[in-house]
Amino acid sequence: MEPYTYELQLKVRDYECDLQGIVNNSVYQNYLEHTRHEFLLSRGVSFSDLHAQGIDAVVARVQIAYKNSLRPKDMFASKLYVKKEGVKYVFYQDIYRLPDNKLCIKAKIESVVTRDGKLLPGLPVFDALV
Amino acid sequence: MEPYTYELQLKVRDYECDLQGIVNNSVYQNYLEHTRHEFLLSRGVSFSDLHAQGIDAVVARVQIAYKNSLRPKDMFASKLYVKKEGVKYVFYQDIYRLPDNKLCIKAKIESVVTRDGKLLPGLPVFDALV
Amino acid sequence: MEPYTYELQLKVRDYECDLQGIVNNSVYQNYLEHTRHEFLLSRGVSFSDLHAQGIDAVVARVQIAYKNSLRPKDMFASKLYVKKEGVKYVFYQDIYRLPDNKLCIKAKIESVVTRDGKLLPGLPVFDALV
Amino acid sequence: MEPYTYELQLKVRDYECDLQGIVNNSVYQNYLEHTRHEFLLSRGVSFSDLHAQGIDAVVARVQIAYKNSLRPKDMFASKLYVKKEGVKYVFYQDIYRLPDNKLCIKAKIESVVTRDGKLLPGLPVFDALV
Repeated sequence: MEPYTYELQLKVRDYECDLQGIVNNSVYQNYLEHTRHEFLLSRGVSFSDLHAQGIDAVVARVQIAYKNSLRPKDMFASKLYVKKEGVKYVFYQDIYRLPDNKLCIKAKIESVVTRDGKLLPGLPVFDALV
Repeated sequence: MEPYTYELQLKVRDYECDLQGIVNNSVYQNYLEHTRHEFLLSRGVSFSDLHAQGIDAVVARVQIAYKNSLRPKDMFASKLYVKKEGVKYVFYQDIYRLPDNKLCIKAKIESVVTRDGKLLPGLPVFDALV
Repeated sequence: MEPYTYELQLKVRDYECDLQGIVNNSVYQNYLEHTRHEFLLSRGVSFSDLHAQGIDAVVARVQIAYKNSLRPKDMFASKLYVKKEGVKYVFYQDIYRLPDNKLCIKAKIESVVTRDGKLLPGLPVFDALV
Repeated sequence: MEPYTYELQLKVRDYECDLQGIVNNSVYQNYLEHTRHEFLLSRGVSFSDLHAQGIDAVVARVQIAYKNSLRPKDMFASKLYVKKEGVKYVFYQDIYRLPDNKLCIKAKIESVVTRDGKLLPGLPVFDALV
């Protein structure tokens, strides 16, 4: 069992499905990003407020395994935990269909933090998330 | 006061905002469509199931007044009611920011129903929504 | 015949199509916005540069008539002309499928210009577009 | 130098940029998918026609390294080549900003082919692409 520290439940929206009748591959990155940002907010960290201060969390690398497709009307749980690896904050994010908990997405998102475009070794508010 | 018959509460997702830092104009159509489809589901009518049977609800005309912009972290209520006008099902849809109930979007969406691409005068399951 | 002053030719991308197998209604607003911004660029006006200076073109009202659907592999021509009506810059925008020139979208987009969020009566660089 | 067999030139659209003022991470998957589908079309293979016949190319795994961000007004070249590895068709896809050819995206997209939802060992029309 993965050591998840945050979970967001969402529902597929019909416009997110493509001509194959399933959620388009790119949309899962929207789900994953929204989950990270809601996770940050739940800890008092706002992505948009940080950006306004010149501090940006930037995705450096994404790995996504597509296990099963989500379809119209599906509910799902988007779960994550985060580790610090060098200068990177690495988000381990999985998406499970509800209510049967079938694994749909297994993802690893590596991000770094920059201030005015320059790489930072880390940020205390992010270190507190790990 | 508008005679709303359905309300869905949603939250802005950061990826829905554009370089102006506000929700992109096109995204409100996503919100409005999702609200209509959830309204249909709440009445036992599935847009995707109907499509699989050759029956499609098709948007013929859209009018949207943009009153105030939604921003990152905003919650909002998406409300609607529907009238039959000739062969058209007309959805009156408004979006209010929460918690101050500021009007953001005032929209009128005219749709028709087709079976295998041919216009129908109406459909009992839709007539029951009015 | 409409007095178009700008035309952009584009091609449908499969991810823009929804489970009905046709371009999703909201995507046409993406096409229309991109056409306006490319029109502006063709006249030396950059939407993103203006934003960086605190000047924003803001959509106040949209009317879109959906005449025929675009589908995977379709090419189309997105045409426009613009008029000044009071403080509004009104874009008349139509989309035609190629090569048969079938009318798909007939739209009227009313926009205003703001500086630091305050309504301007107009802007010389925009007046020059009319 | 990578042995690219296909190249598509595109331009960033402003609505593809998020509140950071750069192309949103998920949008690159749109670019990559569109490039693959246009590559297929250039070889006489239509993704949407195959789907109508019950044959689907399905993405199983995605790895994307984000090297540099694309911004409003940027042009870019999206290049690919494909290899068969077991039952997988592996697309190696890179995106370069134009005209300076700065590497923006380095991606590996692993896909499989299914007929009526069942995995196929391969498909002659796809084998011909390698």
